[in-house]
Amino acid sequence: VKVVSYRQAGRHGVGVVTGAKGLIALAKAAPDLPDDLRKILEIDPTLAKVRAATAGKSADLSLDDIAFDPVIREPHATWALALNYKLHIEETGLTTSQTYPQIFLRMPVCQVGHKEPLWAPRKNIAEAYDYEGELAVIIGKPGRYIKREEAFTHVAGYSCYNEGSVREYQGHNRQFGLGKNFERSGSFGPWLMTPDEFGDPADHTLITRLNGIERQHAKISGLLHDVPRLIEYLSEGYTLQPGDVIVTGSPGALPLRPGEAPEKPIGKVIVAGQLHMRPGDVCDVEVDGLGVLSNPVIEDPTPPC
Amino acid sequence: VKVVSYRQAGRHGVGVVTGAKGLIALAKAAPDLPDDLRKILEIDPTLAKVRAATAGKSADLSLDDIAFDPVIREPHATWALALNYKLHIEETGLTTSQTYPQIFLRMPVCQVGHKEPLWAPRKNIAEAYDYEGELAVIIGKPGRYIKREEAFTHVAGYSCYNEGSVREYQGHNRQFGLGKNFERSGSFGPWLMTPDEFGDPADHTLITRLNGIERQHAKISGLLHDVPRLIEYLSEGYTLQPGDVIVTGSPGALPLRPGEAPEKPIGKVIVAGQLHMRPGDVCDVEVDGLGVLSNPVIEDPTPPC
Repeated sequence: VKVVSYRQAGRHGVGVVTGAKGLIALAKAAPDLPDDLRKILEIDPTLAKVRAATAGKSADLSLDDIAFDPVIREPHATWALALNYKLHIEETGLTTSQTYPQIFLRMPVCQVGHKEPLWAPRKNIAEAYDYEGELAVIIGKPGRYIKREEAFTHVAGYSCYNEGSVREYQGHNRQFGLGKNFERSGSFGPWLMTPDEFGDPADHTLITRLNGIERQHAKISGLLHDVPRLIEYLSEGYTLQPGDVIVTGSPGALPLRPGEAPEKPIGKVIVAGQLHMRPGDVCDVEVDGLGVLSNPVIEDPTPPC
Repeated sequence: VKVVSYRQAGRHGVGVVTGAKGLIALAKAAPDLPDDLRKILEIDPTLAKVRAATAGKSADLSLDDIAFDPVIREPHATWALALNYKLHIEETGLTTSQTYPQIFLRMPVCQVGHKEPLWAPRKNIAEAYDYEGELAVIIGKPGRYIKREEAFTHVAGYSCYNEGSVREYQGHNRQFGLGKNFERSGSFGPWLMTPDEFGDPADHTLITRLNGIERQHAKISGLLHDVPRLIEYLSEGYTLQPGDVIVTGSPGALPLRPGEAPEKPIGKVIVAGQLHMRPGDVCDVEVDGLGVLSNPVIEDPTPPC
């Protein structure tokens, strides 16, 4: 099933997609379940109850009538991977461990849902605001010291993630810190797709389009540290929590098309073919067979204080 | 006032310290307020309502009868500072920007409250588990693009933090990632002290004791990037949220005492005088005038799966 976190008429809800545009609202189909997907996963880690409650039901709403929330609104942890596709490592010229994943955290206010505007920093703050299309993994069943072979049993589902990054701040010091955590700089959606429908992540392809033009296109089998390895590694340190998110890393950029001039470089890491996101752009991250996460970009509207 | 987050009889509560050991329970003094300090700060950022509701009241409980929760149980973000005391920078031999703070995030399950056991990793996982005594700042009033001169008006209070770190994992790759986020590896408490009682952080001293012996002792005026600068910097990227925590960095280690042998080095960064935490130890972090955060250390009891 495909599970959506949404807002409608000022209330948060969770629903299951049916047909091309229908949504079965859990508030109606399963009123005993919480209105938050993280809380649902805490009591229904494989989404068996959600499936049972919605089987055969017809749509209460249309996807056109809702506002999409991030798939998990306030995860306990959102882990993100740096330099986890072989091609991206080569193009940046950076080095990373082949043995241990390179991981950092993103906080909840740095992400929005499908169709919601991403915020580009004001020009006086930063200009190198970049997309990073990625596959997101959402944890269901909690676990510690999880073995590779058992890892997939802890996955509740998958989604798309735009791990928007502010390069100047990312490069301010050794830890990425604030550069990976600007307000509404990233997006997470459109929905969670369960593993029975999604299959093996390695069989899928990730595509990022800026204003309709492909800028990233990579097989997810190109991950340096694959999904089972990431789950195994993180679970050495703590008991993975329901609703925790692992954003698996961004692949390389496609070369610029004939006649396209490279952007004036901002910051240290220059990747040919990587363009910045600007107000007025639309950025799409697609995982084939799962869906497309699409976001317009606006200038950060927060007034200076 | 000093505000405590606690558990008693299986329920979470928030209370105000009175006298040496008394606690005024907000559940009784202000039943309309939430049972969670982050949620209280969302509606009462300066704790004025908490103060008014408890003024002149007598204790409902003793501090001996409660279990201490982390001051904020599930902060939206816990920022931590690397290399933010001049002496610590020198002793590690590492470099850091003099202009921009070096920051990373910690997630909620990596922290416990006062008196709760810290978890040392099992030996087969890691051995270099280190204390880092630090001053924690808790945000009250939200804000964006906050100027240095206004920064203190956004502070709800201060506390002590043991920013426990697993060095092997911290050194696995470029980003600290999991090494700063092991389950129950850090502690946060014993309480929030409001700025009117605490005064200027730069006037205070930070002391860490392992098994009663001083191992860190530093004036908080030795911060490379001070509290107003950290608030100013973070607010360039997002609207600081009530209950957000800034853990301001750890000072250097005191030299070993005469006759003490340095520990066998584990990992890359060797600091003379820095000892590891082991099951059976007790680690105290004191900020003078605020209080002492004390935690016993046990071996991580999570069974291998």
